[in-house]
Amino acid sequence: MTSIARIEAAARRLSGEVRRTPLLSSPFLDAIAGRRVWVKAECLQHTGSFKFRGAWSAVSALTPDQRRKGVLAYSSGNHAQGMALAASRHSAPAVILMPADAPRVKIDNTRALGAEVVLYDRAGGQDRDAIGARISAERGLTLVRPYDDAEVIAGQGTTGLEIAEQAAEAGIDTAEVLVCCGGGGLSSGIALAFEARAPGLTVRTVEPEGFDDMARSLATGTRQRNATASGSICDAIVTPTPGELTLPVLARLAGAGLVVSDAAAEHAMALAFARLRIVLEPGGAVALAAALFQPEALGGADVIVVASGGNVDMHVFAAAMQRHPV
Amino acid sequence: MTSIARIEAAARRLSGEVRRTPLLSSPFLDAIAGRRVWVKAECLQHTGSFKFRGAWSAVSALTPDQRRKGVLAYSSGNHAQGMALAASRHSAPAVILMPADAPRVKIDNTRALGAEVVLYDRAGGQDRDAIGARISAERGLTLVRPYDDAEVIAGQGTTGLEIAEQAAEAGIDTAEVLVCCGGGGLSSGIALAFEARAPGLTVRTVEPEGFDDMARSLATGTRQRNATASGSICDAIVTPTPGELTLPVLARLAGAGLVVSDAAAEHAMALAFARLRIVLEPGGAVALAAALFQPEALGGADVIVVASGGNVDMHVFAAAMQRHPV
Repeated sequence: MTSIARIEAAARRLSGEVRRTPLLSSPFLDAIAGRRVWVKAECLQHTGSFKFRGAWSAVSALTPDQRRKGVLAYSSGNHAQGMALAASRHSAPAVILMPADAPRVKIDNTRALGAEVVLYDRAGGQDRDAIGARISAERGLTLVRPYDDAEVIAGQGTTGLEIAEQAAEAGIDTAEVLVCCGGGGLSSGIALAFEARAPGLTVRTVEPEGFDDMARSLATGTRQRNATASGSICDAIVTPTPGELTLPVLARLAGAGLVVSDAAAEHAMALAFARLRIVLEPGGAVALAAALFQPEALGGADVIVVASGGNVDMHVFAAAMQRHPV
Repeated sequence: MTSIARIEAAARRLSGEVRRTPLLSSPFLDAIAGRRVWVKAECLQHTGSFKFRGAWSAVSALTPDQRRKGVLAYSSGNHAQGMALAASRHSAPAVILMPADAPRVKIDNTRALGAEVVLYDRAGGQDRDAIGARISAERGLTLVRPYDDAEVIAGQGTTGLEIAEQAAEAGIDTAEVLVCCGGGGLSSGIALAFEARAPGLTVRTVEPEGFDDMARSLATGTRQRNATASGSICDAIVTPTPGELTLPVLARLAGAGLVVSDAAAEHAMALAFARLRIVLEPGGAVALAAALFQPEALGGADVIVVASGGNVDMHVFAAAMQRHPV
C-alpha cells in the first residue's frame, strides 16, 4: 500500500522534474463562492495534467531491465501523455492503448511525445484488457495502471505535499480540498499526504453527473459501477468503478463525494479562463464547479480546489465560453 | 533613477503580496522555435498581468497622507486593474482614467476591484492629461504613471529578479529575454535587474507592427513616435512613444527591438492555450510570437519569454483560436 514514506520517496524522484504548480486565487471567484477559493493549477503541470506525477513516479521506480523493455498503459488521454513523456525521458519504450473516441488532441499529443498509440473501439466492445495482455506478453512490457498502482498513487500524492506547504504559507490550517475524481488515484494520494502532513485538510471527491461511482461507493461502503462508459464531456475522469486500492483510502479519509453537472463544469471553465487565465478541460474543472456553485455543501472560510488538467480541444473550450459569458 | 537597491526594496515590499509566477515550457514549443523556450507566465499574476507589481511598488512607497488622499492613473486596462487592487488593499481611493474604447473586460474589472473609472474619448481627441490634472488638483490625488515612474519600474524589475533565479535553477546562464513592450517599464526594470544579478541575460523588446516606437527609438538613439494611437489588437502595449526614464536604460542594456504581426501574436495565443494551458491577451503574446516565429533573429540554445498579460475578451480569444487551429 502507499505510505507517506512512499509518497515522499516519489517526491524525491520527481524533484527537478515536476513543476511545483501555483495556488491561484481571484477576488471574483471568492465573491461567487462566498468564501476564499484557492486553485491548485495542475493544468500547468508537464503534459497538462497531474498524471505526469504518477507516471514519472512509476517509470522511475522500474528496474533498469523493465525500463529497457518498456511500459504499457491504458488511457483516454491524460495518463497516456504523462506516461509518454515520462517514458521518453527515461529512454523507455511506451505503448499506449487509447479508445478511438478519445479527444483527438490527446491522441495526437501522445504520439508526438514519442509513444506508440494503439486504438481500440470502446463503444463496439473491443476487449482492451485482452489487447493489452497480448501486446504486453509479446514484448515484455510492464503495465502501469492509471490509478490502481501504489507508485502511481504515491506520485499523485506529491500534489498533496505541495498543497500542504502552500496552504500553510497562505495561513490555512483547516479546509476542504475538492479533487476531480476518476478512479481515485489523485484523491487517495492527496488524502494520504494530508493524513501525515496536514491533518486539518480533508479531501472531497468531485465527479460529473451520471458518472458518480465514487460518491455512491463512499456513501454505500461498497464499490459501485457507472451505468455507462462514455457520454460525459468530462472524459478525463470517467472510469467504470473506483480502484481497489483507492476506495479503502478514501472511505477512511475523505468526506462525502460531490457531483456536478456538465453545464457547471463548463461554467467553471469559463470563469477559470476569465479570472485565473488558465485553461481547464471539463473533467479538470468539476472541483472548481463544486466550490463555486455548491457552497452550501461545503464548510469553512477557505476551500482548496485541484484543477487537475487542461487538455481540451479548442472547439470544446470555445463552446464552453460561448455558453457561459463572463 | 531606478537602481538595483530600489528594485530589491520593491521586492521586499511585494513579498507575500505578489505571485512568483512559474517559468513554463513545452517540447512542442521547443520544436517550433528550434531552441528551448521558457515562458514566464505573468498572465498568472494578480489582476492578470505584471502591472500589479509596479502598482503595488508605487502605492506601498507613498506616504500615509498620500495614501489617504488617493491615487490617479491613466490606463487602457492592465495598469488600471493593478492600481485598483493595489490601492484597495492599501485602503487608498483610486481614480482611473480609461479610454472609452478599452476592452470592456478591463473597464468592468477595474470598477469591480474598487476603483472609480472615468472614461474619455481617445479617438475624439479629449485631452486625458487635462482631465487628469483637474481631478487630481481637486482631490489631492497622487498620479502614478504606468511606466515613467521610478517605483513602478522597480516593481516591474522584480519580474527580472525572479527570472534570474529561475533561469539559474534551470541551468541557463546566457539567453535573450524577450519582453512585450509598451512604454518600456517592464523591459527596463527587467534589464536593470539582469545588469546586477544575471549579466548573461539580455532584454530584447517586442512590439506589434505599426506600433514599434521602441524598436525605432533603439535603432536611431532618439525617441520616436507612432503614427497612430490605436488600431492594433495588442491594446495593452500600444503607447505613443518610449518613456523618458525607460529609453536610456534600454538604449544602454537591451538588444535590437523585435516587431511581430497581429497574426503572429494570435498564433502565439493559440499555441499558449494548447501547449501551456495559459490565457494570453494579444499584447501579452508578442514576445512568445517572436520566439516561435523569428528564430533567425535570435541566438543561443535557450530563449526566455515574458508572457505579460492575459486580460482578453472571450470573443477575441476564440477568434484567435479559430484562425490558428493547433
